[in-house]
Amino acid sequence: MSAYIPAAVGMSLADVDTPALLLDLDAFERNLDRMDASLAGKRINIRPHAKSHKCSEIALRQLARGAVGVCCQKVSEAEAMVEGGVPDVLVANEVVGAPKLRRLAALAKRARVAVCADDAGNVAALDEAARAAGVMLDVLVEVNVGANRCGVEPGEPAAALAHAIARSKSLRFAGLQAYQGAAQHLRKAEERRAAIEAACAKVRRTTERLAQAGIACDKVTGAGTGTYLFEAVSGVYHELQAGSYIFMDVDYSKNDWTESGIPRFEHSLFVWATVMSRPAADRAVVDAGLKASSVDSGMPKVAEVGGAEYIKASDEHGVLKLDATARLAVGDKLKLIPGHCDPTVNLYDHYVCVRGGKVEAIWPITARGAVW
Amino acid sequence: MSAYIPAAVGMSLADVDTPALLLDLDAFERNLDRMDASLAGKRINIRPHAKSHKCSEIALRQLARGAVGVCCQKVSEAEAMVEGGVPDVLVANEVVGAPKLRRLAALAKRARVAVCADDAGNVAALDEAARAAGVMLDVLVEVNVGANRCGVEPGEPAAALAHAIARSKSLRFAGLQAYQGAAQHLRKAEERRAAIEAACAKVRRTTERLAQAGIACDKVTGAGTGTYLFEAVSGVYHELQAGSYIFMDVDYSKNDWTESGIPRFEHSLFVWATVMSRPAADRAVVDAGLKASSVDSGMPKVAEVGGAEYIKASDEHGVLKLDATARLAVGDKLKLIPGHCDPTVNLYDHYVCVRGGKVEAIWPITARGAVW
Repeated sequence: MSAYIPAAVGMSLADVDTPALLLDLDAFERNLDRMDASLAGKRINIRPHAKSHKCSEIALRQLARGAVGVCCQKVSEAEAMVEGGVPDVLVANEVVGAPKLRRLAALAKRARVAVCADDAGNVAALDEAARAAGVMLDVLVEVNVGANRCGVEPGEPAAALAHAIARSKSLRFAGLQAYQGAAQHLRKAEERRAAIEAACAKVRRTTERLAQAGIACDKVTGAGTGTYLFEAVSGVYHELQAGSYIFMDVDYSKNDWTESGIPRFEHSLFVWATVMSRPAADRAVVDAGLKASSVDSGMPKVAEVGGAEYIKASDEHGVLKLDATARLAVGDKLKLIPGHCDPTVNLYDHYVCVRGGKVEAIWPITARGAVW
Repeated sequence: MSAYIPAAVGMSLADVDTPALLLDLDAFERNLDRMDASLAGKRINIRPHAKSHKCSEIALRQLARGAVGVCCQKVSEAEAMVEGGVPDVLVANEVVGAPKLRRLAALAKRARVAVCADDAGNVAALDEAARAAGVMLDVLVEVNVGANRCGVEPGEPAAALAHAIARSKSLRFAGLQAYQGAAQHLRKAEERRAAIEAACAKVRRTTERLAQAGIACDKVTGAGTGTYLFEAVSGVYHELQAGSYIFMDVDYSKNDWTESGIPRFEHSLFVWATVMSRPAADRAVVDAGLKASSVDSGMPKVAEVGGAEYIKASDEHGVLKLDATARLAVGDKLKLIPGHCDPTVNLYDHYVCVRGGKVEAIWPITARGAVW
């Protein structure tokens, strides 16, 4: 479809066409370093969420740092990761419907694949698909630890589903998916800590019930960028699923980090935009609107340039309110920090990877649009 | 990237994989009929906005009904339309930066192309690009008729820019772009009517000033789905740019139509989703979240199924609140009406075109991601 790539390797940033999705490689690598440092000496694995980046180039760099695999949300996203060389993928989500289950089971022949379930009928369908493909499939029980989205309730309901998985011929019970998504953007560190303590209590109630039933639970997996250190030191979790830490976004930057002990990750992801109109003293319009930066969690923020606030997005325009200090002319380019990184990444086909003002690489976003 | 197509021609709708972007062809064609009927006997042209559909298959059907061409917002969108056989494109927007201007001028050798401007420096750059390509380029002055986005102010500022275009060797002054975007979603018909009357006064002030300066103004173009009949009967506008009328969305459905005289277009665009979790009596979760339906103008709405309200979107999940009448089980599929059609379309690579419960065609969204 859109074969046009807005940059070429070696080009100076100033020459990159807009809108483009920029990845500041130095900042990205510092974020990887910060994550490594924050987990040093802790008995915990990391399995970063690939729904944030949708890019096997990034996944491979996370694996090279010791990640045990990646998480995906969709079968098609998992296919893109395996295609890109990732050997171990957890679909940290329910997969429903025969065509998707067939593809999931087929993928399990090419890589280590696990999936979540929260429904007995779905467990039966997973078993049938795995049997038909001739594979043993790892299935985790998703437990509702407070997000009130998917997941069975902790304790007996979770244990009953684990039992259903364990007795399925082509499935292996592989642990608990226990992601507290509703905790990630609670602004105060203490609120986030309390939410994860409550989640841990729900997980413990479940693992105790599993132990009573004689079902071994190898793994509890969960956590996001907003809370992962709380899970890491809980004694309950074995694996962390943080994803956004590599990029950060405006929404996450509003969290209180100091009290949490979680490092202050820096913004590495930007939408590169051009001032396309300068119609009034207090207004500039950039060429990046709703189709260039997702506004579901708030407007993008203007980086580096003073006196300019992004106040309104329409399909192809962003309106900046300027104060008297702003120096912006038609044709000027600027960086926007996305309000929410994940759905913004999903709008682009490539990262334009920049270091020292030059384009160092173009990385394809191979799972862009992989919503199945 | 995502080569997977969730349907095949001849398949029954029930078998179409999810999420998919459905186009109900009967409803779509009835919307085309409604537009035709509402303009019958009026001396006005229609140039539908292709930013809504990004699909030359749809553009060609609009042309077959008498549209004089299409509007686009971006050069890359215009390229996709010309590539798909559209012979006449107005980029109803400013185009800034040498690479884009080169491409725009090159496109003018393959099709009838016009563009807007609101800045004298940009006019000089357009002239230079047209000269270098050896083309005469049609340029319209964008006038701020109340949206306070791009555009020069009405009257003398607009006339001065028209003069700058007219005296440029490789440009032709082709009229006024006068789109009142801020009027389209005013809920009351009287508010929309008043906003367009105010816009018309600004246009008249400008055309009078142009006439005094001896500059002929062939064309005033603008209007959207929310107001187009007011522009159509104004005696001021020559061309209408409505786009969303073919699809409708939740946001537009909240307008009062009865008092406006504008036909009640019906929803023809849907996100096809699967219930992937049914974790509580009052909750279902579907597999279509922020990456399947844009929420910038509000949540999607559940179509046809009773007792279910889409209350929350996360990246890959939509949470439905159910009342006691809702009958939804894991694996059930349902239609969602997007909150805002344009950015939702931009998430997909294909329309799955459905008639009578069968897939009749798959139309590629050739300008998906064409943000340059």
